[in-house]
Amino acid sequence: MTDRNRRFLLKARPNGMPKTSDFALVEEALPDLQPGQFLIRNHYASLDPAIRGWLDDAPSYMPPVALGDPVRASTVGVVAESKAEGFKAGDWVMGLNAIEEYSMAQAGGFSQLIDIGNVSSPTHFLSVMGAVGLTAYFGVTEILKPEAGQTMLVSGAAGAVGSLVGQLGKQAGCRVIGIAGGPAKCARLTDDYGFDAAIDYRGKSAEALSDEIGAAAPKGIDLVFENVGGIGLDATLLHLNRFARVALCGLISEYNSEHYGARNLWQLIVHSATVRGFLISEFLDRFAEGAAAMAKLVGEGRLRFDEHIEEGIDNALPAFLRLFEGSNQGKMILKLI
Amino acid sequence: MTDRNRRFLLKARPNGMPKTSDFALVEEALPDLQPGQFLIRNHYASLDPAIRGWLDDAPSYMPPVALGDPVRASTVGVVAESKAEGFKAGDWVMGLNAIEEYSMAQAGGFSQLIDIGNVSSPTHFLSVMGAVGLTAYFGVTEILKPEAGQTMLVSGAAGAVGSLVGQLGKQAGCRVIGIAGGPAKCARLTDDYGFDAAIDYRGKSAEALSDEIGAAAPKGIDLVFENVGGIGLDATLLHLNRFARVALCGLISEYNSEHYGARNLWQLIVHSATVRGFLISEFLDRFAEGAAAMAKLVGEGRLRFDEHIEEGIDNALPAFLRLFEGSNQGKMILKLI
Repeated sequence: MTDRNRRFLLKARPNGMPKTSDFALVEEALPDLQPGQFLIRNHYASLDPAIRGWLDDAPSYMPPVALGDPVRASTVGVVAESKAEGFKAGDWVMGLNAIEEYSMAQAGGFSQLIDIGNVSSPTHFLSVMGAVGLTAYFGVTEILKPEAGQTMLVSGAAGAVGSLVGQLGKQAGCRVIGIAGGPAKCARLTDDYGFDAAIDYRGKSAEALSDEIGAAAPKGIDLVFENVGGIGLDATLLHLNRFARVALCGLISEYNSEHYGARNLWQLIVHSATVRGFLISEFLDRFAEGAAAMAKLVGEGRLRFDEHIEEGIDNALPAFLRLFEGSNQGKMILKLI
Repeated sequence: MTDRNRRFLLKARPNGMPKTSDFALVEEALPDLQPGQFLIRNHYASLDPAIRGWLDDAPSYMPPVALGDPVRASTVGVVAESKAEGFKAGDWVMGLNAIEEYSMAQAGGFSQLIDIGNVSSPTHFLSVMGAVGLTAYFGVTEILKPEAGQTMLVSGAAGAVGSLVGQLGKQAGCRVIGIAGGPAKCARLTDDYGFDAAIDYRGKSAEALSDEIGAAAPKGIDLVFENVGGIGLDATLLHLNRFARVALCGLISEYNSEHYGARNLWQLIVHSATVRGFLISEFLDRFAEGAAAMAKLVGEGRLRFDEHIEEGIDNALPAFLRLFEGSNQGKMILKLI
């Protein structure tokens, strides 16, 4: 074990799309462990669109990443050294840490032991059994509450969350339509994930997109799982049925832009529709239930999921930016060891 | 009784703010009554922001006003002649008719008998006991469900709906903040309607507005009754508490504009907040309950409401446009006789 720690620090708040000069990769000495603390050797970090929000100094559900701090991320790793009860060297843990080789954690914090005995890869704790899987599970079962025969539209449908949401929608008996970027992703939606229809948003106006949504949803849309925002959301709003529900999970197309705003909110009025923003943290006391439900579906072979693994902390920024280009294929994970 | 009918027709779909050439005031012969029909001499027409939506050829909760048809509006009037069972000459009725001196109606349609014996003016059926009052009543009691101690923000607060909403919020024990345009309206909010705080949006940036909202709502906002949209809504979204609810009733600032879009919807995600669009038509089977509840509050002197009456069908367009200028003081009603 080394006493050096490479860390990916935030140096400046990004203005729009993050760029190299907003960050610094530094090598620091490991601090001494205090009683109650333990040191995690991070093996994998989860790169999520939500991280972009944490880089801004704006009111949010958790404080912004401070300038000079490492960029916050969920990680899985192995306890390297421990002065905390309940954690011993060699234990696998997952938690909200940072993009760094080693993280200091403490008992009672955001890290918990995981049992990797029944999974084919510890990365699954950052995908189907982690925040991504729980977001899909609680978003569908608690926010959308689908009924057989309804039509569900999923944006960002080829993404880590969207692809799981669509499969859960199909299992609930819905007609499921996905919006994704490019023909390859659209093919994955119908071929790999079982969506009924796929719409490629690339290069299309709001009007053209609206026409395609209308064709794919001849009975209108009852349920929307929104990951993207922008013109896709505006086009979707034009096809809502009465009492439609929109689970607002993300607005990835808007995170790096100040310029777009949703123009068709009046459709919520005329269709008595609901938009419900949500975070999985509201279901904190039910995470075990959600992870078990997703693990069961995986075990039964009823859930297809993909992981996109990039290697090395040197690649943290380009890997993160691929989320916004949409060039990842599956849950984006950075391998750190 | 004349056999001529002056009618305010839609000639062209407005592009942005409606203008004189979009309409025509014509005089037509009255058609002959068919069995089941009755003729209403309209005394008052209700001029509502919702009418603007009906002039566009876009998907909505009712078909657009057809070119060449009179502009749809709620009216109160007196049956002039009847071949319909249940309606006789001299009966007072209210219904969804049009801006015209006489409307043809039919039994089983959108017109109903009203008892003007207990009201000081039949116009109250177009204000506190009509759609405006029912919108406030069901919006507050069924969509927002306020609890004592919560903070409620109302936009368009000096308007017909907003001023009633604020008073209902106060009766529920909320701290109520109103946003309105200009010092005179803001003074009415606190002096006449009992709001705890009033914010004048005129001439302010989203940032300045957000600062004032923050100062008026030091504990954040739990409930929003939104009539306006635009930068006011974006500023409001920055102050939501966890699980906040927004009753989306109208977006008047956006009806004549293609340019603004809500940019802070991500705040719904980070606060697990809900936006619920609504129309009073979802409570159709409870209108009698709502009107009775409002009439009771009026009778007890617990509800202040104002009516702004403009005279003459010649003034239909300028009176309608005052809604968007915000120069009306109370529910806008056009007197037709």
